[in-house]
Amino acid sequence: MTYTLVLLRHGESDWNAKNLFTGWVDVPLSEKGLAEAARGGELMKGEGVLPDVVHTSLLRRAITTANLALDSADRHWIPVKRSWRLNERHYGALQGKDKKQIRDEYGDEQFMLWRRSYDVPPPAIELGSEFSQDADPRYADIEPVLNECLKDVLERALPYWHSDIVPDLQAGRTVLVAAHGNSLRAIVKYLDDIDDESIAGLNIPTGIPLKYELDENLKPITKGGLYLDPAAAAEAIKAVANQGK
Amino acid sequence: MTYTLVLLRHGESDWNAKNLFTGWVDVPLSEKGLAEAARGGELMKGEGVLPDVVHTSLLRRAITTANLALDSADRHWIPVKRSWRLNERHYGALQGKDKKQIRDEYGDEQFMLWRRSYDVPPPAIELGSEFSQDADPRYADIEPVLNECLKDVLERALPYWHSDIVPDLQAGRTVLVAAHGNSLRAIVKYLDDIDDESIAGLNIPTGIPLKYELDENLKPITKGGLYLDPAAAAEAIKAVANQGK
Repeated sequence: MTYTLVLLRHGESDWNAKNLFTGWVDVPLSEKGLAEAARGGELMKGEGVLPDVVHTSLLRRAITTANLALDSADRHWIPVKRSWRLNERHYGALQGKDKKQIRDEYGDEQFMLWRRSYDVPPPAIELGSEFSQDADPRYADIEPVLNECLKDVLERALPYWHSDIVPDLQAGRTVLVAAHGNSLRAIVKYLDDIDDESIAGLNIPTGIPLKYELDENLKPITKGGLYLDPAAAAEAIKAVANQGK
Repeated sequence: MTYTLVLLRHGESDWNAKNLFTGWVDVPLSEKGLAEAARGGELMKGEGVLPDVVHTSLLRRAITTANLALDSADRHWIPVKRSWRLNERHYGALQGKDKKQIRDEYGDEQFMLWRRSYDVPPPAIELGSEFSQDADPRYADIEPVLNECLKDVLERALPYWHSDIVPDLQAGRTVLVAAHGNSLRAIVKYLDDIDDESIAGLNIPTGIPLKYELDENLKPITKGGLYLDPAAAAEAIKAVANQGK
């Protein structure tokens, strides 16, 4: 008995395009992002990877990605579950700020620590400020989140993995998780048992479904999974790696 | 204690535009239908009618309508439930047929019986034929549906009303039901206690949210509810009434 998990990172958002820190700010997909989402669904349909249930974050860019991908895969009718535990990392006081400006202001080292370190969170956001979510009704039932490092994301995503995703997998369902760069990196870190340093180098391309076959202990049969368009994924990963140079 | 229910009929589909019988055939919204859905959400947002949970059919035109309306109402993140019990009436052997052609072939009286009578179903669809759903995985767990009159729709929709919608209402949630002309007419017939003859004259306009406040016995406080754009709704209902003349 094996289980099938498909991870899908949302396509480009308006703020990716504008180079702003986004985090929990609920920005829409750009035109390019909408097209990426639809293509993600075509890849699933083409490869016969047909989700039986979808899990999304509470953020529009992941929800729209799931909606469009499932529509083009002819799986728009499957059950849907959502949780803040699949949200993007909360970027604290950096939310809404220009990335280049922050880099110039704080320097490369601090900038990369905030972006890529496993356990250094950005400064806390001020409650009541423009890009804070403390008045947002969708988070009314949780303690305000002020900032997160990747370790925080992993610690709040894993309970949902165990309580909601694992039971769907164990029921034999093909599970789609439509989420974000960092919530998906947290899941991949856990599944592939990646250490705290190496995870900094892992990038998940947008809009390309990443399929994992899991064994009876829910361990990946092939470490790293399989992108449904491996050539496009390799190219996207290379492009990100070159950005830092 | 009162409860809030919002009914939303999907916007124009490709086959509405082409004047074909649709039923359970899973056609997409037309461009006009997409715009109607988004406007439905703007009306909800403008009136402060904010759904806490949405119920949809398993058909793309209702699902897309819910997705777009909730997105423009900033409620895209609420929980979603879906059921075939909210599907449009199954139009049997008429599915995929041109309405004018059927009218010419069978005459006005038979045509109107199939369209508007409460308990005369259209001829059964042939299993395995082009517009039958018997091989569709989303209906794998139910007996094949071959044709339905409005009475059949009411009898399969009511169990879902009681099992899934009522508990959400009783939990104090504002419930959105995004569905179809006939599944919504069935719910309205039940709520407003409309007799089997009068229901023939009831039309629900597309894309305009219809809000019901229900009392502690789940009976409408105002019979017929309240459209969020009453002028547009009155005009649409008048236009349908004039079609028959």
